[in-house]
Amino acid sequence: MEYHQYPKPGKIEVALTTSAETVDDLSLAYSPGVAEPVREIALDPDNAYKYTAKGNTVAVISNGTAILGLGNLGPLASKPVMEGKALLFKRFANIDSFDIEVTHNTTDEFINTVASIADSFGGINLEDIKAPECFEIEKELISRCNIPVFHDDQHGTAIVTSAGMLNALEIQGKALHDCTIVCLGAGAAAIACMELLIKCGAQRERIYMLDRQGVIHTRRDDLNEYKMRFANNTDKRTLEEAITGADIFVGVSGANLLTAEALKLMAPNPVVFACSNPDPEIQPELAMSVRDDLIMATGRSDYPNQVNNVLCFPFIFRGALDVRATVINDEMKIAAVEAIRQLAKEPVPESVLKAANVSELHFGADYIIPKPMDPRLLEKVSKAVADAAIKSGVSRI
Amino acid sequence: MEYHQYPKPGKIEVALTTSAETVDDLSLAYSPGVAEPVREIALDPDNAYKYTAKGNTVAVISNGTAILGLGNLGPLASKPVMEGKALLFKRFANIDSFDIEVTHNTTDEFINTVASIADSFGGINLEDIKAPECFEIEKELISRCNIPVFHDDQHGTAIVTSAGMLNALEIQGKALHDCTIVCLGAGAAAIACMELLIKCGAQRERIYMLDRQGVIHTRRDDLNEYKMRFANNTDKRTLEEAITGADIFVGVSGANLLTAEALKLMAPNPVVFACSNPDPEIQPELAMSVRDDLIMATGRSDYPNQVNNVLCFPFIFRGALDVRATVINDEMKIAAVEAIRQLAKEPVPESVLKAANVSELHFGADYIIPKPMDPRLLEKVSKAVADAAIKSGVSRI
Repeated sequence: MEYHQYPKPGKIEVALTTSAETVDDLSLAYSPGVAEPVREIALDPDNAYKYTAKGNTVAVISNGTAILGLGNLGPLASKPVMEGKALLFKRFANIDSFDIEVTHNTTDEFINTVASIADSFGGINLEDIKAPECFEIEKELISRCNIPVFHDDQHGTAIVTSAGMLNALEIQGKALHDCTIVCLGAGAAAIACMELLIKCGAQRERIYMLDRQGVIHTRRDDLNEYKMRFANNTDKRTLEEAITGADIFVGVSGANLLTAEALKLMAPNPVVFACSNPDPEIQPELAMSVRDDLIMATGRSDYPNQVNNVLCFPFIFRGALDVRATVINDEMKIAAVEAIRQLAKEPVPESVLKAANVSELHFGADYIIPKPMDPRLLEKVSKAVADAAIKSGVSRI
Repeated sequence: MEYHQYPKPGKIEVALTTSAETVDDLSLAYSPGVAEPVREIALDPDNAYKYTAKGNTVAVISNGTAILGLGNLGPLASKPVMEGKALLFKRFANIDSFDIEVTHNTTDEFINTVASIADSFGGINLEDIKAPECFEIEKELISRCNIPVFHDDQHGTAIVTSAGMLNALEIQGKALHDCTIVCLGAGAAAIACMELLIKCGAQRERIYMLDRQGVIHTRRDDLNEYKMRFANNTDKRTLEEAITGADIFVGVSGANLLTAEALKLMAPNPVVFACSNPDPEIQPELAMSVRDDLIMATGRSDYPNQVNNVLCFPFIFRGALDVRATVINDEMKIAAVEAIRQLAKEPVPESVLKAANVSELHFGADYIIPKPMDPRLLEKVSKAVADAAIKSGVSRI
């Protein structure tokens, strides 16, 4: 708790980038000098990128309906998380970011509020908003704003998961297109992960997604439109039935929901991403003790292969802001997947080993995803994303 | 223009207040460590003041409908001004402030948007919002938010004007209660100035307010409710008629609207506040050349007695935040008036003389208002405001 209180409450503050010492400084910073950039922006809105901090600013916005794994605790309770996110944006990508917590009754009210303030920023990072509302919110805001709007719980998770998954499959000698996938969990992150894996080559009909009621199949009548897209025409109903012979397990659900017995049912050389935090769907020690042909990732920093969104969100926004992208499109997301993926195959610098407190790291079963502190992410991922934005025609410079 | 572009576009940025160097730091800043303050705030919203930056954060919010004297240029064009305001908050009162520009169709939409995001902040400074909408907006937001909401164009101007006015009258040997006042201009600042002068002792029926149609009187049928409160039961119709025999002229209107001839019509020992910027209602040289019994103030830094809001807004918010005031009430405003007023009577430190580039400053006709760079304002005004908040029962510590 002390970390969040000292030296002063919270984790971020505002700093001046210009001199404000003399009377002359102030007459430039404010009236009358400030009238000049005002007029220029009134003539051409793009001048806001030239004369204000807009182009390097990302708002971290939440309504607190799905805070971490803690649930719907309301907007104000989400503030420490959102400040933390803003801190990460600054720390990793030098993006000026601050948090806004939105109180609202209806989804439309939330959307209207965010759309109304969007012009103030260069981008919007949505965070900790519960499914299924998060899907409509993001879709509507993307269409109403001409700046990138990105729900990190969905796409950040999906991008890092896909990067790690493609590397794991490469090591296991499997192609995503041929894999049977079990996804335990059907929330925002789960759905986004599966959608992105499909864009990376997975077959929708080979995915078994499970919610609390079991396998999502075509004869269920309790599915929202987002789950419906994963309804499988199958007789499988339980996790055990779905996982039998599967190549991939992705868990975005809860602690210890994958038993050793179920793990044994998977095909040879399986890949398990047990991303529930802080306790994964199966403890790595247990998993490894029953399958020595396994590649495993978790959400934890104290095991190999941590699926951590911080590998992606600072850099995908950095790339998007650098070329004034109007959206973060699929091409940019897949470019981020590829850049993260390739980085894990490169020799690891001494500084990264030291920060990770290990003596060596080589591409392989225990190193399929770069470490969060890897300083090369900034250049590699941002550049790949920016290039993809330009190539796909959504940049504005 | 360079001032707003270098070293990077804009004038403010975000900085970290905590360490974010190691993996351990990040696990405190974000998941899993951040879950603790989240839970504490969910239990008691006031814990947001303990574990987040809320309590020291003021949002500067505008819709760009009345930017400086430039008019309605839209929300985005107001951004350089709002950033400048944020810079001043930080520079003068160490308040962490950032700007939000709101796009909206109706006044209700603006109010709803600001009310929805208000919980994120410790206070809200409204800026450059046109009259008469600004009155309804402020009133409604004050009633819906439990943090201070303050429209600086109204009350900041009114507080500094009132402080200077009371000192000018003291020097002229007049009591506000006995003065006839002409107010040229009937916008947000004009109305707020007159309302506060009334709270300081002026008589409403001795005020002649003029808009573009001339004197606001009881037989006009084109008045909104805010102007209506100043409708004078008089036969005077023109500025010349109103100013004849008047003790005080307050101009919040436009350049050169007060002629030398009109000035000559005022009572002996008059006070003229010609606050139109950058060009006052009458040039000081001209005014002084026709009346040597005059005390004059302007909005300009290159003449004596500058009416500058920066004397007030950083410190009234500092005082309010320091005691977690739920509003900025009349008691706090009047405490600010008194504190600013008294400071002009105290000996001026060397550093202030140097910053103002003068060899001496003594309370008198050419020094009725403290200088904007006076470092004593922070302690004196903030303390007076905080004390008034406690005494009037609106503090929460």
